[in-house]
Order: sequence, then C-alpha cells, then structure tokens
Amino acid sequence: MKRVLVTGASGFVGRHSLPFLVERGYQVHAAARGAVPPIEGVTPHACDLLDDRAAAALIRAVQPTHLLHFAWYAVPGKFWTAPENFDWAAASLRLLRGFAEAGGRRVVCAGSCAEYDWSEPVLSETTTKLAPRTLYGAAKNAVRSCLEHGAAELGLDWAWGRVFFLYGPHEAPGRLVSDVIAALVAGKPIAVSAGLQQRDFLHVEDVARGFATLLDSDLQGALNIAAGRTVAVRDVVARIGALTGRADLIDIGGRPAPPHDPATLAADIDRLTSLGFVPRYDLAAGIAHTVEWWRRHG
Amino acid sequence: MKRVLVTGASGFVGRHSLPFLVERGYQVHAAARGAVPPIEGVTPHACDLLDDRAAAALIRAVQPTHLLHFAWYAVPGKFWTAPENFDWAAASLRLLRGFAEAGGRRVVCAGSCAEYDWSEPVLSETTTKLAPRTLYGAAKNAVRSCLEHGAAELGLDWAWGRVFFLYGPHEAPGRLVSDVIAALVAGKPIAVSAGLQQRDFLHVEDVARGFATLLDSDLQGALNIAAGRTVAVRDVVARIGALTGRADLIDIGGRPAPPHDPATLAADIDRLTSLGFVPRYDLAAGIAHTVEWWRRHG
Repeated sequence: MKRVLVTGASGFVGRHSLPFLVERGYQVHAAARGAVPPIEGVTPHACDLLDDRAAAALIRAVQPTHLLHFAWYAVPGKFWTAPENFDWAAASLRLLRGFAEAGGRRVVCAGSCAEYDWSEPVLSETTTKLAPRTLYGAAKNAVRSCLEHGAAELGLDWAWGRVFFLYGPHEAPGRLVSDVIAALVAGKPIAVSAGLQQRDFLHVEDVARGFATLLDSDLQGALNIAAGRTVAVRDVVARIGALTGRADLIDIGGRPAPPHDPATLAADIDRLTSLGFVPRYDLAAGIAHTVEWWRRHG
Repeated sequence: MKRVLVTGASGFVGRHSLPFLVERGYQVHAAARGAVPPIEGVTPHACDLLDDRAAAALIRAVQPTHLLHFAWYAVPGKFWTAPENFDWAAASLRLLRGFAEAGGRRVVCAGSCAEYDWSEPVLSETTTKLAPRTLYGAAKNAVRSCLEHGAAELGLDWAWGRVFFLYGPHEAPGRLVSDVIAALVAGKPIAVSAGLQQRDFLHVEDVARGFATLLDSDLQGALNIAAGRTVAVRDVVARIGALTGRADLIDIGGRPAPPHDPATLAADIDRLTSLGFVPRYDLAAGIAHTVEWWRRHG
C-alpha cells in the first residue's frame, strides 16, 4: 500500500501532481489551506501546517507511507525575502520528524534552483556548490541539509526536487508568464524587461509529473526538475505575443531587469533523464496550452 | 534598557553566562526546562521552547531587546545524530521570528565548530568552508544560514558564537574531562583513547564570558569562541592525573578513538581577539579549577 500525503496541494505544482500520483497507484491525501481540486481518488484535508498540533493530527490521521512536500510561502515578488521563510523551514523540519515517527518511509520535498551558486553556468546536483543568495534559497537549503544528514537516523528514504522556472495553468498573478498572458488575452498593454536572460522553463504539469516520478523511484538526494535547455525570456514573451495575436501590446524593455539577475540559469538534467523522464510539453506546446487555458479561465 | 532572554539557562554554557550578563548591566531573564541557578538580578522562567505556544508566551512576557540562545539537544554521545536536532532547529527558527516580531534588536546564538569543513587545519570564520559532517552540525548551520540571509529582513542585529571544546564545572557526565575527573576523584579506573588529537579547549566560564562579550558588541556574523591554541587530548588527561595524584588509574589507549576523528581542530580567534577578549583561565588553571569543583561537588 502506497499512501501519500501531499502538502501544498492547492498550490501551483501541488495541485497538478495529484492526478499523476493517482495514476501511479497511490492512495492520495491532499493537504492545503485553500481548496484542493476535486479529483477521483484524492482525499482532501484542510490543514494549516504552520500550526504544529494541526500538522501532527493530520499525520496521525493519514499515516502516510510517502510524503510529497510542496507547502511553502510562495507569494510572487515577496517570497525571496519574506520572514515567512523561517516559518516554513521550521514547519518542514517538524513535518519530516512527525512523518518519520509515524512510520513514514519515503519523502520528496520541493527544493529550488535558488539553492545553487548562480555564478556557475550549468547547475548540477553533483558538482555545483550550494550557495543561496536569498533567504528563500537559504531556508530551502537549510531543510535539505538537515534531511541529507538526518534521513538515515530518521529511517527515511529521501529525495529533493529542485524546481527551475515554470509556467502553466493556475499560475499566480505577479509572475512573468501569467501576467503577460493575462494582459494580452484581456487586450491590455504590458511592460516587460529586455528579457535577454536565458532560463530553463518547464510546463507545470511536467514539473508535477517529474515529482511523481521521483517519489515513485528509489533515487536518493537532489534532482533538478527542469527542461534541460534554456530560452531567452524575451522569446517566451514573443511566443505569447504571436499566439495571442497581440504582440503590439508588449513593451519590451519598458521595465527594468531585476538587479543581480544572472545571464543564464541552466539545469543539468542527467539525473532526471536517468529516471526515464521525458517532458510531454516542449515550450511551443506548453505556452500554447497555457494561453488556451487562460482564454477559458482568465 | 538592555533586557536579555537567555535560553538553555540551566545548560552548561547558559548557566555560566548569567553572572557575566548581570555584570554588563543586562536585565536577565533565564529560560530553561531545568532549574536555573539562583543569581541576584536574574529572573528564572520555566519553559519548554519546543512548545511553540509556551515559547511565544515567554517572548510576550519578557519583551527582550536581546536574545542569547543556547537551548539545544545536548545529550553527550547522542547529540551528533539525534532526531531532536530537527526539533531544535525548528524551535530556533520560530524563536528568532518571535523575537523579531516582539521588537527584539540583537540576537546571539550558540553555534559549533561542527559547522566547518574539518579537513582544513585552522578553522576560520572568514575563509573556512562550511561543510558539516553530522546532523548536529548541519542543523546548527541551517539555522545560521537562515539568520544570515534573513536577519536584515527581520530587522535584527545578529552574531553566531562557534563553540569548540570546553570543560569546567557542571559539565555533564559522558564527556571527556568530566568523566576523567569524576573517575579519578572517586578513585576509579578509566580508559581513554590514545588521545593524540589536537583540540582547542576553553574553560566554560571563558566560553560564557565570550558570549556575553559578543552579545554586548556590535559584531555581526560568526565568531569562534575558543582559546586559539590546541593541546593533545592525552595531555589534558595527564594533567588531570597529575592534579588528582591518580595518574595510575588512567588507561591511555584502552578505548578506541572515535572513527573519522580529525587529527587537529584549531580555531582562528582573530575576530574574538578584536573584541578585546582575553581568557581568564589557561589550561593549567582551568583544569585545576575544575578538579577543585569536582572535589566539592562530585
């Protein structure tokens, strides 16, 4: 019996992971503060994981064999520096302890490319130094380091999926792809930065499927969940302009680039590929799918 | 008004820090699960910091301007790998948040030389890589990294005192100096390892005074609190043998050395010296003082 507790199940990646977990034969328990999408085979649990007693009660009720931990503070623009990173690191450490004590076997957490030293050109799980520049990256890396050094003692198998750049249905406002699509679909002008940065973008359904694949594998340690190729941010924006027919509304360079933004953030995906994982969406198909979704829901 | 909340105030370093804080003009609030030594000017608080609500209530009650955080899981022989490291990392992160939210200004936490990469000969705050090998070191470093990246956001001044090897009155059984002294004072034989390892030993009162000095300074970041010179462990043991007149009871080499124990752990103390700090005890005086204490209390 594989019984997985998914935290952050109403979040961007979490909600998309649920069908893939059902498909892989897990009994799925989905915890969130917000509403979990109703999916056959998924049991929703309303729970604030920052409340220790609520979190402990949830673990006792579900008795999960597997834990897929997405929950974190994720408000666009704020999450890099928000004090809530302390709360979520603390809650994550307690959740790991509680999961282990309740007999849990394998845990996969959502990490971030922000854990890496961004001065290296290609970010690799095996060779790139971990040197987060932000509180968000430091807090994620803090939990990972405790898990790395403590998993054996806790009796846990573990893996850590590092997310790069993602886009797709249900992306929160305030992020690049969501804001550009929402504006153009609504016929409103939008200013973006020059967008020369090269980034690794992966459709959120592929990210979520990557996590399900990782959970269902024996891989231990960190794993980049990314496309393995980069694209200039301006090319993503241009693609949205072409698909919506409203490229005229885009003011490229009308907004400053974020300070200290590295020119390239590329992911080494050899470990991901070793799991047999192949994305279902390339960038063209993924952006087209997302624009379609926005047209229906925007 | 300087009002300090000391956590772990019944612990080995915590209890010794209290008089130095009073001496420096702090209004001292001492929190512990165990009994706090009765000291003029120190208000004791019975509190289990692993209980979030109790910790939050304590912060609200004390409204500290300063926080000196020693509390951690410290059972000799077990603390390196104990799952409780997760709990204390989590509790520490929450305590830092709560302290900041209640208007706290400056925090100093007890770190450890176990945060460093022990393959380097002299461990320096500014040049040595942080690469803990143990869960204990990883958990301490996890909190430190969050504080380093989040202190400005929380509006906190911060420093992090890294403890090396220490000894003195009230040391728990199960540690080298306490066990050797206790045995010899009681006239019992004791086996120790060959003791060729070079370690930096500092008397606990000097360690505690170092923390009080650090708290009362403007220094930001990590600081080694150590003697700045190493001694072979066997020489510490021999000194205890000579002072007690029972060297005959010591079986040097009768016990295996811990696996993977590095030959030398030396501390760079330039930053500590820059605070004007000078230890009051050299090793000879410190061990003599400790043997005397054990004769009275053993």
